[in-house]
Amino acid sequence: MATRDLQALFDPHSVAIVGASNDPVKWGYGLARGALRGASRRPVYLVNRNGGEILGQQAFRSLEDVPKPPELVVVAVPEPAFEETVDTALAVGARAIVGITAGLGELSRDGLEREQAVVQRVRAAGAVLLGPNCLGVFDAGAELDVGWDALPPGAIGLVSQSGNLALELALLAADCGLGFSRFASMGNQADLDAADLLPTLADHEPTRLIALYVEDFRDGRAFAAACHAAVEAGTPIVLLAAGTSEAGVRAARSHTGALTSGLSAVEAACRAAGVELVRTPKELIDTAQALLAPRLPRGRRLAVFGDGGGHGIVAADLAAATGLVVPKLGEQLVAELRVALGPMAVTGNPVDLAGGGEQDFARFERGAELLLASEEIDAVLLTGYFGGYAEYGPDYEDRETGVARSMGRAAAASGRPLVAQTMYPRSPAAWALRSEGVPVYGEVDAAIRVLVRLAARAERHSTGVPVLPEPARSPIESAGYFEARDLLAAAGIPFVEARRVASLDETLSAATELGYPVVLKALGLLHKSDAGGVALGISGPEELAQVFSKMATRLSAAAYSVERTAPLEAGVELIVGARRDPRFGSTALAGLGGLYAEVLEDIAVALAPVEPYEAEQMLRALRAAPLLLGARGRPALDLLGAARALAAISRVAAEHPEIAEIEINPLLVTVDGALALDARVVLETEGGSDAR
Amino acid sequence: MATRDLQALFDPHSVAIVGASNDPVKWGYGLARGALRGASRRPVYLVNRNGGEILGQQAFRSLEDVPKPPELVVVAVPEPAFEETVDTALAVGARAIVGITAGLGELSRDGLEREQAVVQRVRAAGAVLLGPNCLGVFDAGAELDVGWDALPPGAIGLVSQSGNLALELALLAADCGLGFSRFASMGNQADLDAADLLPTLADHEPTRLIALYVEDFRDGRAFAAACHAAVEAGTPIVLLAAGTSEAGVRAARSHTGALTSGLSAVEAACRAAGVELVRTPKELIDTAQALLAPRLPRGRRLAVFGDGGGHGIVAADLAAATGLVVPKLGEQLVAELRVALGPMAVTGNPVDLAGGGEQDFARFERGAELLLASEEIDAVLLTGYFGGYAEYGPDYEDRETGVARSMGRAAAASGRPLVAQTMYPRSPAAWALRSEGVPVYGEVDAAIRVLVRLAARAERHSTGVPVLPEPARSPIESAGYFEARDLLAAAGIPFVEARRVASLDETLSAATELGYPVVLKALGLLHKSDAGGVALGISGPEELAQVFSKMATRLSAAAYSVERTAPLEAGVELIVGARRDPRFGSTALAGLGGLYAEVLEDIAVALAPVEPYEAEQMLRALRAAPLLLGARGRPALDLLGAARALAAISRVAAEHPEIAEIEINPLLVTVDGALALDARVVLETEGGSDAR
Repeated sequence: MATRDLQALFDPHSVAIVGASNDPVKWGYGLARGALRGASRRPVYLVNRNGGEILGQQAFRSLEDVPKPPELVVVAVPEPAFEETVDTALAVGARAIVGITAGLGELSRDGLEREQAVVQRVRAAGAVLLGPNCLGVFDAGAELDVGWDALPPGAIGLVSQSGNLALELALLAADCGLGFSRFASMGNQADLDAADLLPTLADHEPTRLIALYVEDFRDGRAFAAACHAAVEAGTPIVLLAAGTSEAGVRAARSHTGALTSGLSAVEAACRAAGVELVRTPKELIDTAQALLAPRLPRGRRLAVFGDGGGHGIVAADLAAATGLVVPKLGEQLVAELRVALGPMAVTGNPVDLAGGGEQDFARFERGAELLLASEEIDAVLLTGYFGGYAEYGPDYEDRETGVARSMGRAAAASGRPLVAQTMYPRSPAAWALRSEGVPVYGEVDAAIRVLVRLAARAERHSTGVPVLPEPARSPIESAGYFEARDLLAAAGIPFVEARRVASLDETLSAATELGYPVVLKALGLLHKSDAGGVALGISGPEELAQVFSKMATRLSAAAYSVERTAPLEAGVELIVGARRDPRFGSTALAGLGGLYAEVLEDIAVALAPVEPYEAEQMLRALRAAPLLLGARGRPALDLLGAARALAAISRVAAEHPEIAEIEINPLLVTVDGALALDARVVLETEGGSDAR
Repeated sequence: MATRDLQALFDPHSVAIVGASNDPVKWGYGLARGALRGASRRPVYLVNRNGGEILGQQAFRSLEDVPKPPELVVVAVPEPAFEETVDTALAVGARAIVGITAGLGELSRDGLEREQAVVQRVRAAGAVLLGPNCLGVFDAGAELDVGWDALPPGAIGLVSQSGNLALELALLAADCGLGFSRFASMGNQADLDAADLLPTLADHEPTRLIALYVEDFRDGRAFAAACHAAVEAGTPIVLLAAGTSEAGVRAARSHTGALTSGLSAVEAACRAAGVELVRTPKELIDTAQALLAPRLPRGRRLAVFGDGGGHGIVAADLAAATGLVVPKLGEQLVAELRVALGPMAVTGNPVDLAGGGEQDFARFERGAELLLASEEIDAVLLTGYFGGYAEYGPDYEDRETGVARSMGRAAAASGRPLVAQTMYPRSPAAWALRSEGVPVYGEVDAAIRVLVRLAARAERHSTGVPVLPEPARSPIESAGYFEARDLLAAAGIPFVEARRVASLDETLSAATELGYPVVLKALGLLHKSDAGGVALGISGPEELAQVFSKMATRLSAAAYSVERTAPLEAGVELIVGARRDPRFGSTALAGLGGLYAEVLEDIAVALAPVEPYEAEQMLRALRAAPLLLGARGRPALDLLGAARALAAISRVAAEHPEIAEIEINPLLVTVDGALALDARVVLETEGGSDAR
C-alpha cells in the first residue's frame, strides 16, 4: 500500500468539531476545548445541531453552514447519525475525518458492515478516516489537540488502540519527564491502521521514539515492514501488544472488533523488525526512557555502584538472574577505586561507598568516572540512596545535583550507558541525571530489565521482515502422510525410507525390501503416536504380522507405512514446522521433539520463510541448544542439516497459505545429518482461524 | 536455642546514647534526637566524651557518670573505642546494646575476632547485642526510636541487614499507607540474628506482618523453624533474601561479613516455612499490602473488571501468562451483568463498562458485587481508570470514593479478595479502597503478581521445616562408585546389577554372568560419561574386549564396573540427589536425567530429608512432570518408586553432613519401578564451602 498523506490529520488548515458541547461530561466538550487551543493557528468550527454558544463561540447547526470547507472533521455524534455526518463532511470537502463515535464495528456485524461501507466512501473521496470508536488526535508542534486533555509535549509519537491506556502512558511519561510529539487513537482501524500511521511518525522530526498499543495487527507483514523501516531509519519502536491470551482475545474482539495474533507470532514479528515488545504500560515508558537515552552497551558486563551494601547486592542478584554479568573487577581498577573512594569502600563490584558518600560527594563522581572509563565493563548501574541527600538541606541539594550532572557527563564522555535507580526518583538529583541523558528509575527491577533489554538490543542483528512468496500454483488438497512426505521431500528434506502398504502381504514384502528391524505406522490418524498407531523396532516377519493384525483390528486404518529403523539413540529428536497466524501468516517453529518441546515450553518461532542462517539462530536460541552443540564432551550434531530442514519446511508453509500447520516430529539430528522420521499437515478449514 | 528476652531492646526503662552529637551529619545526632522523642516515657542519657550541651540537654562525659544504670545502651563511637564502650555498658548494668559502629567483623579477620570476643562478654553478662554495623532499633508502641528518622507507624515488624534498604522499604510503605510496628537493624548479626528476633515479632500484638531483609541466614534451619512458628501462629512473613548470585555473595561478605546461601536452598526453606520470598523492596511492600488484606482466593479463577477495554485486555493477558485463569462467564451471570452495566458494557470477562462508568458510577458497584458474589470466580481485579474521576470535580470525587467504599464492603461480604490497579494510586478513591481492606497498586503487573502469589499461598500446604537427623555414627570416608552404590542400596534404593572388576579376564567373566548386552564403566572419574568412560550396549565378548582395551589405554582406570543393560527406551531418566548448603544443610533435588535438568533448568529442590509424599510433590512440580504422569496417551510411570528413591537419597545426605553432593543420574523410571543406573558422591573438603 502506498504511503497515505496524513497532513490533514495531524496539521490541518482548519478543523470542525461535530457534536461540540458545553457539557463537561461529554466528549464534545473536551474536543471543542482542545481544538480551540489551536485557534490562533487555524480556524476552529464548532457544530451542534442545537446551535447556540459553545465555550464562548457561536456554534453552527450543520457542517454545511461552516463558512469554509474544514480540512479535518472530528465526528462525536451519536451512533445513528455517524454515517450521515461523515457523508456531509466528505461533501463539504473534508480531507481527514476522526470518528469518535462508538457502537459500530466493535459492537455488531451490522455495525461492521455499515462501518466498512463508510470507509469505501471515504476512500473514494480520497480522504482518510481515523477510528471510529477512537479518542482523537494530537500534534504538539502543530498545536492540534482534538480528543485529549493536557498531553505533555515531548519526543514520543504514540499510536494506540485504547484511549485509557494512552492516558495511563501519558501519566507515566510525565512522571519521568517524557512527553508526546504526536498521538493518534486508532479505535476500530476501519480505514487507517498502525501500518498507515507509522511512516508519518518515522518521518516526523520531533518524534524520536514510537510507542504503540495494538490489539489487531491487520496486515501483519505490512505492519512489521513499516516498523522495520522506521527502526532502520533511526526511530526506535516500543510495542505493547494485547490480546495474546484467550481472555484477551475475547475482550479485544469486543473492544475494537480486533482479530488478534498469538504471542509467539507477535514476538517473531518484533524480532524481525527490531521492535521492543513489552507487556505493560509501565514497561513501555521504562523502555522508552532508556531508548531515548543516547547509548547502548557493547556487552553484558555491568558495574553496580552505590552507597549502602543492601542495594548493591539486591541489584547484583537481579542482574545475574536475568542474564547480565557482574564481573569481579581487575586489580588495577580496584586499586584506583580504593584511592578514589576511601578506606571504607567496597571495591569488588558491586562497588559500595559504605557510608562514604555523604562524607564526600565527589566520591560518587570519581567512582562513576572510573567505572565508566573502564574496559572491564559495558554499563554502570547507580543504585540506592543517591537523590536523597537533598533532604539534608539546600547545601546538600546543590552538591548532589552537581555530582549528578558530572556523572551524566562522565557517561557521555565514556560512550557507555549509565542507568540509575534511586529511592528518590523525583528528587532534584534524579532530574539532573535525566537532563544529562541518564535514565532514572524508582525500582531496581525496572532498571535491571532495561539494562538487559539494552544489552539484547545491542547484540541483535535484525534480519528484516521476510516477504511472503507468491502462493504455489497448485495448492495442497489432501493432508495425508505420504502427501506431506512427498511435499517436504521435494523441498529437499531427507526422509527415512518408507513404503505405503495396505495389506499384510504388502507389509511383509516391504519390510523384507527395507530390512529388519522396521517401523509400522497406521495412516489416517492425526496423532498416530498418541493413538497407538506407531510400532518401533519390529525385529522380524512374525512380530510384524502380529503388530499388523493388532493395529488392523483396533484402528481399522485404510493404509500403513512400513519404514526403516533410524538410529534414535545416536541423536537428538527435534520438531521443526510452521503454523499460520491469522495476521502475520506462516511462522516457522523449532524445539526438542517428542513431548519435550510442548512440556518444557522451549520453542523458537520466526516469521516464515526463514533462511538456513536464521534457522540456525533459532536452534541456537533454544534452551536445549547445548544438546545439539555438544555439551560436556559429547560430539556436536549436524546443526546446519537441521537448520536446512527447518528453512525448507518454513518455505513450503510460506508458499502454501492453505496450510494451517505443518511439522516434522521427530527430525532426527545426528553427527552425520538430519533425517525426517515423520510428517504431518493440517489444512485451513472453512470458518477456520482466518475467517472473520 | 531458648528464646531470648528482648524487652530491654524494644522497650527499655532507660536509654543511653554513647557518641551523641550536635552535628546533623553524624549518626550520633539522629540517634540522640530520636531517643529524646521518647523522653516522656523513659530517661534518655546522652554521652559524649567532650561533654557539653547536646540538643538542649547536658551530655555526660562517660557512661559511668550516668546517674542510673541505662537498660539500653546505643554505641555510636569510632571503631577503636567500640570494645571499651561495650565493656563499660556491661559494667554499669546494660541489658541490651545496639552497636551502630562499623568496621569490625565485616572489614577484617581481626575485626571479626574482636567482635566475637565482645559477644562472649555480652552473653556472659546475660545481655544482648544488636549489630554492630547496624542502624538501630524502633518500636512505635514503646516510643523507642534510636537510629531512625520518622519511620511511619503501622503493622509491619521489620528486621533488616541493610539500613538503606530499610529506608527504601519505609518510603514504599508510606506510599501505600503502610507503616512499621517495630524495626531492628541487624548489621553483622554478631550476637542477635533473625532467628532470635523473629519470636519477639511473632508475639508482638501490633505486628501483623513480618518483613525481613537477610544476607546471612546463620543457622538456616533455626531461622526457617522460627519463621514457620510465626507463620503458623498467624503472622505472615515476607523475605527479601540477598546474596544469591556470585556478585551478590561477594558483596554480602563485604557488607556484613555474610556467608550466603544458594537461591534454591532459600526457596526450599521458604516453601517449607510458608514464607513469601521476594526479589526487590517494591515486591516486598506490594506483597505486604496484599497479605495485610484479610482474604485469600480459593482458586485461580480471576474476573477482570474496569472501564476501558485496553486495561482489561492487558490485565487478562498478564494473568493468563502467569498461571491465573480468566474464565468466560456463565450465561446467567452475563445476563445479570448486562442488566446491571448497561447496553455498551462488555460482559465476557474481562468485564468492561466501555465508557459507561462515568455515566453511572453505581455500575462499578453493581458489577463488583455481581462478580464477587459469583461462584464462577475466586478473585476480582479492578483495573484501569477508576480513581481518576475525582479529577472531574468535587462532586465526582465524593461519588467515586463512595463507590470505592461500597466495592470494598462488597468484597468483605463475599469473602473473596478484590485487588485494584489504578492509574491514580494516590487518589481519594484509592485511599478509600485501601481503608476497606482492598490492596491498590499503580502497576498492573504488581497487581497480577500479587494475585498469583495469593492463589499459590492458598493452594500451598506448608510441610514444616524438617529437622536434620543425628549424623550417622560412621561418616563416609571414601567417595568411590561402589561405596556410593552400597550406601544408597543399603538405604533401600534398587540398583542395576553390577560387578567390580580390574582385569579383562574378570570383565569377561562378569559379563557372562550378567548376560549380554552389558555396560562397561571406568571407575575413579568424577564425570565418567563426559570423559568417555561409559560404554553402553556391548553385545558380545569380542566387542567387550575391544572396549576394555581402549578404555584401559586412554583412561588407565584402576577398576571398572560391568553392568546389566537397563531398558532405557521404556522409561524416563531422572536425576535425584542432594546438595549441602552452608547455612540450610542438605537439600534434596530432582529433575530430568542426563543433561536435560541442567540444560533446561528444571530442577525441584527441598530441605532434606524429604518424606516420600513430599518427594512426590517435588516430582509433580517439575515442568517435565507430564513425561512421568503419562502425557498424551502414554502410560503413567512409577512415580511413587521414583519418590521413594528421592526420599531415601535425601535421608542419606541428611544423615551424612560430610557429603557435599550426592546423586543418582540416571534413575530410570519405568511403568514397573525406579532403578538406579549410576551413583556419585562428593565429600566436603577442608577449606570447602562450609569453612569460614
